[in-house]
Amino acid sequence: MSGQSTYADWIAVDWGTTHLRVWAMRGQTAVAEASSDDGMGTLERDGFEPALLELIEPWLGQKRINAIVCGMAGARQGWFEAPYVAVPATPGALTPVRVPTQDARLNVRIIPGLSQAKPADVMRGEETQIAGFLVAQPGFDGVLCLPGTHAKWVYISAGEVVSFQTCMTGELFQLLAEKSVLRHSVTGEGEDNAAFAEAVSDTLSRPERLAQRLFALRAENVLNDLSGATARVRLSGYLIGAELAATKPYWLGQEVAIAGSPSLNAAYAAALETQGVVAQTIDAGPLTRAGLARVHAALTETA
Amino acid sequence: MSGQSTYADWIAVDWGTTHLRVWAMRGQTAVAEASSDDGMGTLERDGFEPALLELIEPWLGQKRINAIVCGMAGARQGWFEAPYVAVPATPGALTPVRVPTQDARLNVRIIPGLSQAKPADVMRGEETQIAGFLVAQPGFDGVLCLPGTHAKWVYISAGEVVSFQTCMTGELFQLLAEKSVLRHSVTGEGEDNAAFAEAVSDTLSRPERLAQRLFALRAENVLNDLSGATARVRLSGYLIGAELAATKPYWLGQEVAIAGSPSLNAAYAAALETQGVVAQTIDAGPLTRAGLARVHAALTETA
Repeated sequence: MSGQSTYADWIAVDWGTTHLRVWAMRGQTAVAEASSDDGMGTLERDGFEPALLELIEPWLGQKRINAIVCGMAGARQGWFEAPYVAVPATPGALTPVRVPTQDARLNVRIIPGLSQAKPADVMRGEETQIAGFLVAQPGFDGVLCLPGTHAKWVYISAGEVVSFQTCMTGELFQLLAEKSVLRHSVTGEGEDNAAFAEAVSDTLSRPERLAQRLFALRAENVLNDLSGATARVRLSGYLIGAELAATKPYWLGQEVAIAGSPSLNAAYAAALETQGVVAQTIDAGPLTRAGLARVHAALTETA
Repeated sequence: MSGQSTYADWIAVDWGTTHLRVWAMRGQTAVAEASSDDGMGTLERDGFEPALLELIEPWLGQKRINAIVCGMAGARQGWFEAPYVAVPATPGALTPVRVPTQDARLNVRIIPGLSQAKPADVMRGEETQIAGFLVAQPGFDGVLCLPGTHAKWVYISAGEVVSFQTCMTGELFQLLAEKSVLRHSVTGEGEDNAAFAEAVSDTLSRPERLAQRLFALRAENVLNDLSGATARVRLSGYLIGAELAATKPYWLGQEVAIAGSPSLNAAYAAALETQGVVAQTIDAGPLTRAGLARVHAALTETA
């Protein structure tokens, strides 16, 4: 943060459950950034504005400044509810909801999440990543997979989110690897492409086996000294295989793009490759900021 | 614990990961009992004997006394390893492993668990419950389900455990209901037999849907005010349905008995009933002690 010389045009805010990340923006370009652990999950309603000010104060001048927020800050239990917009919806053209603030220098708006009636599903934050993805690939027609804690599979056509589906794969992996009896058996990191591919195929072709496969990791560790690294790879493979089984109508015969961290991208691409699907992979890192910039630009155009 | 007047013939010990439970026995009858939180998971190797003595000291006289132990105390990381016995095996005729003790008044033996090579699987503690079950039903030929944290499905014939399969259903339920994003959505208790049966059928007939069904509980809570009690019933139904999908070769066309807590017995019996299987239900409460008595009796007969 380089002080008063970097007065920003506007401020981009990614406010998740466990983190707060802000960028001082000039047009499409970030000139400064900052972050904290003041996630939505740790804040009371009146704690949001101070938490934001704590990070962006050095960037504020006399003029009122726009701050565009995405993520869980817009949930009912967050700062200010930005009600879900039902699909089909155009992520880059969502109207952010105005948030009342104490500090007159701030003009805060939160981007709403998306909802789907049947099957019931919701997203908050990913709609902005999708907007960022569509900035780079406006003509994309196919399925975008956003792997992570709550992985999203999103069918996109003509710039719209047509439908989507969430799988709790990342959260299940974390709970099983860190909190369950398997935590003793999935220690260690390492690659084992063959074991991964076999595990993916196993639950993808026989999803009913998942419930038994999990404990078998423990048993094979105890009985056959299965290594912790291989057990971890298999656990990942079983869960991603189960996700691919659940999302088959999404990826089968479609153009598929995966936008996650580099390691998740590699795992999902390898899993899909076992099914003959060649997916493009995109680093999700810059997408949120690009999406916030897209929404900000749309707002300025219409203003 | 009624002091020196209840000198026991022998002592029965159920030593799990999180609990220690002991009974002062005269033959088949418990004349006193005690318990503590000194589970195997909380003890160092040299902490087991003192933890046991703390509970049974009032029952000890001058004479050396047998203590028969089952459960995780016999694991490699426990008090003293009682190596797994491979199936097929007769649970009531397992030879308990002698444990060296400091206190000369104790003659401690731990019952080994059972293992299966393919698919790899293990049990510790349940073999003693099965021995207890077979005391009451020595001619049972069929499948015994022991629901719980790590549910076991056990094929029994001619008094032997022929094969078995573990599902982590109870642990998954607990992790999802208490540690995952669903914890906000599955609050509250209540019965909803129709919702339960529908959820069981859903994952049993379409096991690949599990990965998406879970997050839908959250979405339906947020979007449609799905009640916490119904969401909890559905979560249980989805996971038990997935378990029934995984264990279908066990229960299909077999005589089935379920031995768990009364509430789990009711849930599993209802789930199986949706598939036309009428199972007998047995309160698992007394089974461990009955199994320990069976093993003690066999030991005395052969001594």
